[in-house]
Amino acid sequence: MPEVIVNMAAGRTDDQKKGMMLDITQALVKNLGVDAEVVTVQINEAPLTHKMKGGKTFLERKAAAK
Amino acid sequence: MPEVIVNMAAGRTDDQKKGMMLDITQALVKNLGVDAEVVTVQINEAPLTHKMKGGKTFLERKAAAK
Amino acid sequence: MPEVIVNMAAGRTDDQKKGMMLDITQALVKNLGVDAEVVTVQINEAPLTHKMKGGKTFLERKAAAK
Amino acid sequence: MPEVIVNMAAGRTDDQKKGMMLDITQALVKNLGVDAEVVTVQINEAPLTHKMKGGKTFLERKAAAK
Amino acid sequence: MPEVIVNMAAGRTDDQKKGMMLDITQALVKNLGVDAEVVTVQINEAPLTHKMKGGKTFLERKAAAK
Amino acid sequence: MPEVIVNMAAGRTDDQKKGMMLDITQALVKNLGVDAEVVTVQINEAPLTHKMKGGKTFLERKAAAK
Repeated sequence: MPEVIVNMAAGRTDDQKKGMMLDITQALVKNLGVDAEVVTVQINEAPLTHKMKGGKTFLERKAAAK
Repeated sequence: MPEVIVNMAAGRTDDQKKGMMLDITQALVKNLGVDAEVVTVQINEAPLTHKMKGGKTFLERKAAAK
Repeated sequence: MPEVIVNMAAGRTDDQKKGMMLDITQALVKNLGVDAEVVTVQINEAPLTHKMKGGKTFLERKAAAK
Repeated sequence: MPEVIVNMAAGRTDDQKKGMMLDITQALVKNLGVDAEVVTVQINEAPLTHKMKGGKTFLERKAAAK
Repeated sequence: MPEVIVNMAAGRTDDQKKGMMLDITQALVKNLGVDAEVVTVQINEAPLTHKMKGGKTFLERKAAAK
Repeated sequence: MPEVIVNMAAGRTDDQKKGMMLDITQALVKNLGVDAEVVTVQINEAPLTHKMKGGKTFLERKAAAK
């Protein structure tokens, strides 16, 4: 406690994800005064076809960004 | 904002999922008066062995439905 | 199944929320071919101090928008 | 209703997951007096690199435990 | 780890909720072989106007059930 | 995108929560290279009777800690 869930689309490297989870852990340790050991962070990652923003799937957004 | 999460079992086509996410986006635009661009929808999809209803996994429910 | 969760900040009327949940229900019925009775939608609503976007709480964003 | 979500790291057998979901279903039937048929349980499972506790990913924790 | 979230409508007693969370904890201890101390359960409770099933809010369902 | 959800028990000050959400936002900006404006963080806060760890509600844990 507390438990953090990050809902994000696929496409980041394992290093990016690990760095992000580590910094989130520190954000809780620093601001809530809890021990790192009680902090859990989980990424619920969606394939690009399973996430939409602005009415476009992330697959469509990626194609449009090229 | 707002962020919508759909928890569902695997088995739908990409077209069904895209149509569903698009209509959910419109449901928020219409009722909340927000711009589509701020609406995110993510499907957290579970394999048939990772979801249960009525004490049966969706794998068991699918087999029973045949 | 499926279950939909809407994470949003406080500030909408009950009528807006009901209309939104009803249209989300129809989005699933139409695209997935399921019966409305199996569709659940829940709003997890956060006070304006419990939600942040762009580094500003929704309380700060509301004040800035005035 | 109610809907239960279990956020966990990969690594359990299908039998463990099925037993867990079945016992969770019974926990709701017993304590809330609802019919099992209205209870849904979904596991949102994360690869070992997508979950962290105590500042270590579950991949690191698994390696350290050996 | 694991973390369990129960999404439910308001209306149960604290004793029902405590009993449910305790039995869910035991479901994980028994099936996953984890220590109870690492299991967290959180109820995200919605007012009757913030949850819908079958196209009816739980407020409407409660009124209809009388 | 991405959207972060923090499931925690009540009892922190608004300043602690704001500082935590701000640092989480920065964790995503730094590690994922996204603009702060696309990052949302929501706290789903549970009363002490709606959260359990180690088979004890947070109300019981608080009483035991005195």
